[in-house]
Amino acid sequence: MATIEPLVVPMTPDAPEACGFSPCEGGVCAAVGMRAAGVSAGFRKNPNRYDLALVVADETCVVAGTFTTNRFCAAPVTVSRERAARGRARAVVLNSGNANAATGEPGLACALKATALVAAELGCEPEEVLVASTGVIGVQLPLEPYVSGVPAAVAALAPTAAAAHDAACAVMTTDTRPKEVALVGALPSGRRVHVGGFVKGSGMIQPNMATMLAVLATDAPLTEGAARTALRSAVGESFNKVTVDSDTSTNDTCLLFATGAAGGEKIDGSSPDYPVVAAALRSACIDLARQIAADGEGATKLVTVNVMGAANEKDADTVARSIANSPLVKTAVFGHDANWGRVAAAAGKCGVAFDQACVDIDFLGVPVCRAGLTVPMDEDEMLRRFEAPEIEITVNLGAGEACGRVWTCDLTHDYVTINGDYRT
Amino acid sequence: MATIEPLVVPMTPDAPEACGFSPCEGGVCAAVGMRAAGVSAGFRKNPNRYDLALVVADETCVVAGTFTTNRFCAAPVTVSRERAARGRARAVVLNSGNANAATGEPGLACALKATALVAAELGCEPEEVLVASTGVIGVQLPLEPYVSGVPAAVAALAPTAAAAHDAACAVMTTDTRPKEVALVGALPSGRRVHVGGFVKGSGMIQPNMATMLAVLATDAPLTEGAARTALRSAVGESFNKVTVDSDTSTNDTCLLFATGAAGGEKIDGSSPDYPVVAAALRSACIDLARQIAADGEGATKLVTVNVMGAANEKDADTVARSIANSPLVKTAVFGHDANWGRVAAAAGKCGVAFDQACVDIDFLGVPVCRAGLTVPMDEDEMLRRFEAPEIEITVNLGAGEACGRVWTCDLTHDYVTINGDYRT
Repeated sequence: MATIEPLVVPMTPDAPEACGFSPCEGGVCAAVGMRAAGVSAGFRKNPNRYDLALVVADETCVVAGTFTTNRFCAAPVTVSRERAARGRARAVVLNSGNANAATGEPGLACALKATALVAAELGCEPEEVLVASTGVIGVQLPLEPYVSGVPAAVAALAPTAAAAHDAACAVMTTDTRPKEVALVGALPSGRRVHVGGFVKGSGMIQPNMATMLAVLATDAPLTEGAARTALRSAVGESFNKVTVDSDTSTNDTCLLFATGAAGGEKIDGSSPDYPVVAAALRSACIDLARQIAADGEGATKLVTVNVMGAANEKDADTVARSIANSPLVKTAVFGHDANWGRVAAAAGKCGVAFDQACVDIDFLGVPVCRAGLTVPMDEDEMLRRFEAPEIEITVNLGAGEACGRVWTCDLTHDYVTINGDYRT
Repeated sequence: MATIEPLVVPMTPDAPEACGFSPCEGGVCAAVGMRAAGVSAGFRKNPNRYDLALVVADETCVVAGTFTTNRFCAAPVTVSRERAARGRARAVVLNSGNANAATGEPGLACALKATALVAAELGCEPEEVLVASTGVIGVQLPLEPYVSGVPAAVAALAPTAAAAHDAACAVMTTDTRPKEVALVGALPSGRRVHVGGFVKGSGMIQPNMATMLAVLATDAPLTEGAARTALRSAVGESFNKVTVDSDTSTNDTCLLFATGAAGGEKIDGSSPDYPVVAAALRSACIDLARQIAADGEGATKLVTVNVMGAANEKDADTVARSIANSPLVKTAVFGHDANWGRVAAAAGKCGVAFDQACVDIDFLGVPVCRAGLTVPMDEDEMLRRFEAPEIEITVNLGAGEACGRVWTCDLTHDYVTINGDYRT
């Protein structure tokens, strides 16, 4: 039998090196002009756990945001969406332990008061302060933890890696680890800039809610328009390509602060520096997105689903998402089973047109299906490859040139335990 | 506090009594003119398990079928879809243990030979014989079990409840029990008719495949057009409203034989008898569909998701399906948790328009959310209600008059075990 070549997916590389950047220290504070803090304010019962994060720019600066599309959206999303649309802000205050969702008018009032408290401490307008929450829904968010916690957080603000780390820890819920990124690199203009940030997200959060909150910052002097475009594009190729359990939260929020501290001319969409900053932001967001998938509730594996040979990008995304959301594919990965039949069934069910006789599938770089038929494989070798922390599934639909990618994780007993614990 | 009334869903009743029918014995053989058999033919390694079912009409009669929409469709689906479209058939042969899917030309040849073997034994044309398969995919289906098994099944054919039961058992895979239904009732014309059948389906089947196979029969003398219309409508309100794991199989097949043995004038769509037969068929299919959901892989609960107050039926179905497929809702049911936040998030994420401030939600007839806000409930009483085998979740979107319903099951540790067992 002739050797069958594995599939090669034609995609832009994700590594920061591809755009001339490299990892550095500092998280969201890697961006010059940003300070952060994480404190224990009392939103959670456990006093040893940070639950209030504050991220502040030294001066009011450019900001861009993307938010949940869920019809049920939380009070802080309503507030921050409107304020981020103004294009400039000074700070964001985040809490864990309570999502302030399905809380009606009192919830909205609480979110507004929280931003007013921060504004009073920082000496800025309330409209320049954004807010985000994650945790239980349907329970009114108390104001008291803000009253004592905001001054404490302002006092703790620092432009350091440790402070950024504290902020990243303060937004964790079922996350098993904080998730940070920081990159540094030179732009074509010669300016040295940073992109940093943190994210939380691990599926849905006990006992009620899913949330992904991300705060990113750069010292590149992006214009408001450039910040918005770069963020939207980066989110589209990173956080929007992650699915832990197919559930979109009521609180999803992703913010980008651009302090401009790197100096020099403003960078708009036509600047030669723009594509490089945008690529670095994309790389940073993909890094965080992969951290979310790898830390999915109960996950033992990060799963990357690549689809190539689709008629268009929408088809590629639909098929990749259908495979990534299939409980049968996810349990097969948990079971170290290169079960291409489940992948094929998931690809075939989502309404995208292709010919089953043209479909090729690889698991972990090993051809398992060619032209819709089983390819004999070395089962022992496949089991050895399944020991890796990351499982790559690649499907060629043979229907065109477009490709797409989605990250997910396996579906395990621990997912059921985390989300199905008896409520007593 | 004033008592909050539970939601009342305006839907056609499902019980056979609603159309003047009542349960009877006989399964698919309840329809006069039908015979069935189940034998062990060797498709499975276990010789004590039936794996070949044969269902035969005494004479060639009206037939209608609905089939999977999956792009990956199995060889028997290709054969049966074409033959059922002719509107008349004599028999269907079904096997478990191998789905004959992703088997290319050899698979197609095997399916055709199987029908030829049955035709030779029965003395009819091969084109009058349909075929269905369920089990592993990507593995060639051997012909040998048909060669010995078909004559044995023909010899065992009987018009009895026991024979119908054998057939129902022969198509089981991960099903934990056979699933049958039989109804009897009088039509407006005075004729006494029967509707009976069996189904298999339990999620996806080890190690590779999902399949729902259903065979229904009636002795009402439906015309080809009436049989097609009644079956399509009944399937739309029953099997197409079941989701165990959101995965559509490559082999789904549902057939209706109408023997006409009840005699009298043919029943077409304009006959006063038609709506009654159609209602009985709908009732029978809903009974079988609920049996599938209740026997979903690893399920401990049947879950009925009702959506009312939608702008249109499509919206109601989309929201109901989004809730029924949410792993977070399904694990919450497993955990006896009336977690309406997860239901709200699932409703909100699917692109259907509604105002969160107009949403009401009940769990098991207990109001838990009104106008998008939490309703205090008696947690002990709710936990008591969760002991029931069936969990009803009702959502009023407050956006219109349309309603819809989907059946599913909870997501449990056993689901992960069944589908994630290490392949070694």
